[in-house]
Amino acid sequence: MTLRFDIPAVPDLHDAALAACLQHKIDQKTKPLGSLGRLEALALQLGLILGSETPELRAPQMLVCAGDHGLAARGVSAFPSDVTWQMVENFLAGGACVSVLARQHGIALSVVDCGVRHDFAPRENLLNFKVAPGTADALSGPAMTVEQCAQALNNGLRIVQGLPGNALLLGEMGIGNTSAASLLLARLGGLDIADCTGAGTGLDVAAVVRKTEVLREVLLKHPQAQAPLDALAAFGGFEIATLAGAVLQAAAERRVIVVDGFIASAAVLVAARLAPAVLQRCVFAHRSGERGHALLLAQLQAQPLLDLGLRLGEGSGAALAWPLLVSACAVLREMASFESAGVSEKST
Amino acid sequence: MTLRFDIPAVPDLHDAALAACLQHKIDQKTKPLGSLGRLEALALQLGLILGSETPELRAPQMLVCAGDHGLAARGVSAFPSDVTWQMVENFLAGGACVSVLARQHGIALSVVDCGVRHDFAPRENLLNFKVAPGTADALSGPAMTVEQCAQALNNGLRIVQGLPGNALLLGEMGIGNTSAASLLLARLGGLDIADCTGAGTGLDVAAVVRKTEVLREVLLKHPQAQAPLDALAAFGGFEIATLAGAVLQAAAERRVIVVDGFIASAAVLVAARLAPAVLQRCVFAHRSGERGHALLLAQLQAQPLLDLGLRLGEGSGAALAWPLLVSACAVLREMASFESAGVSEKST
Repeated sequence: MTLRFDIPAVPDLHDAALAACLQHKIDQKTKPLGSLGRLEALALQLGLILGSETPELRAPQMLVCAGDHGLAARGVSAFPSDVTWQMVENFLAGGACVSVLARQHGIALSVVDCGVRHDFAPRENLLNFKVAPGTADALSGPAMTVEQCAQALNNGLRIVQGLPGNALLLGEMGIGNTSAASLLLARLGGLDIADCTGAGTGLDVAAVVRKTEVLREVLLKHPQAQAPLDALAAFGGFEIATLAGAVLQAAAERRVIVVDGFIASAAVLVAARLAPAVLQRCVFAHRSGERGHALLLAQLQAQPLLDLGLRLGEGSGAALAWPLLVSACAVLREMASFESAGVSEKST
Repeated sequence: MTLRFDIPAVPDLHDAALAACLQHKIDQKTKPLGSLGRLEALALQLGLILGSETPELRAPQMLVCAGDHGLAARGVSAFPSDVTWQMVENFLAGGACVSVLARQHGIALSVVDCGVRHDFAPRENLLNFKVAPGTADALSGPAMTVEQCAQALNNGLRIVQGLPGNALLLGEMGIGNTSAASLLLARLGGLDIADCTGAGTGLDVAAVVRKTEVLREVLLKHPQAQAPLDALAAFGGFEIATLAGAVLQAAAERRVIVVDGFIASAAVLVAARLAPAVLQRCVFAHRSGERGHALLLAQLQAQPLLDLGLRLGEGSGAALAWPLLVSACAVLREMASFESAGVSEKST
């Protein structure tokens, strides 16, 4: 049975003329050449994504995709699965970290029930795209059927089609989802699962060893799941598949994609294996403290903006990095040039 | 002749009860223990500085202190001295990087003429605390007389006394001032000047070698300038001395001090040698791309928030890091606890 999912077209953003224009504009700003470091590369990237010498970020959307994992019953997480739905309530009530940060920065927050094992009362900002109440146990069979995987991916496309603005921030919640991310990294990156597996929400050393052994067994259970979507279906979860779809659609629409930590990066890994040019649209917010994220970033050849030892997920790192993107655009739009400000240039 | 400057009293902030309260509060937030990484340490520090379990940053003030350097005539900078006053005009007109970023974050910006070689027309947001039109050439004699040095330090105290709010961001402008900062670091840190000297606004390798040789001669010229204020007077500049005074006063008033890059850190080095407890109030915004800054941060045992290869100065790095401080306070004030949100705690 083949997975029915049409990958959106994600064209290459290469535009040598615009890139040269942007670089010249950055170099003419009243500052020593290159002195804004990484912020200059970010300004160039944002200009290219938004196709403008004066890029402006509008109506940023934080999408917190939530789902449960059958594998959680195998003791791979320090927290019980009920925390997934409890945190969804916390996001909606405004008390979670990502809620606080989204409020600070004027980022609209939508929570997506991609497959939480709980019945939610309808609420503003809660999008119901539940595929099933949690994935199946990946140690017994595939986490998702191919139909479920296609449904979650297509949900991601549809969700983004309905969102305003030109920037998407990726967030997630799902007890057990570092396991799914580690499995995807190990399989798609061809890496040893031990190098990809970390403490998640706070396992001790012995528990990480047990988690690693469970994940090693899961990989052995699915030797045929080598292609990106086969691996995604085998390992889950619904929130990662929905995010992967959202990334593809956002990229196709030329939105700026702000990638959070380990789980969000795993969704990007899947999307990038299907359409490599999505990476041109991705700004990597931070290097997570979760073991495996550095390797995952290396797979994506990504340079994250922040390195603060965050390992919370939810989109919290993406929200923390957000003002840097706003700054990069503001520098392009508002800073004076040597000429306009009447400032002398470097003596040579 | 002794320098007449009364160091403000900067008491130790140690408060074990408040620290324990803050840590407990942070640990009870709905997130895995420690999962906000450096942001948690920042929240704790801000709570201790502001003496509150619910710290709130009010009316942040960016102080851009400007001054010229006699040593600039020795070819230690890639830009001519006129750029100092031209950039002051750019700050005031709103076109400089720090102007753009301060506007983005609602940070009030004051530019201080500490000793620029130019006569400015009076302007709103331009504070006239000019000691002299530029320091003397440190290769011929001391950059400042002891009276001038005391005057600049006292200016720093007075400026901060007149500012509202509870947070001070340190910015500066002065062609030649990486030389002064390198000299202060080498002398007060007991380091080789070659390790402390970098490209500044953009010298090439050969020019950095020449700059290093000039600075080595300056150090030899002032063997007696070993104490912090003696070194400050010998090497300058007016903006660094004014900033050092501002840091001491802000620390005495228990304001949060946001330290920008190499020059601002050199001012903090002088202040910390006079009153070590100022460091408890300092948040180091970023590790600059300027050679010497990593060593200077090590002298101060400082862990900066950002590492983006910035080397612009002006306070631009402090402004870029500012939203992280706002986030740390918001997390303390607004995030729910496991109990208040009804979220299950870690299984043990």
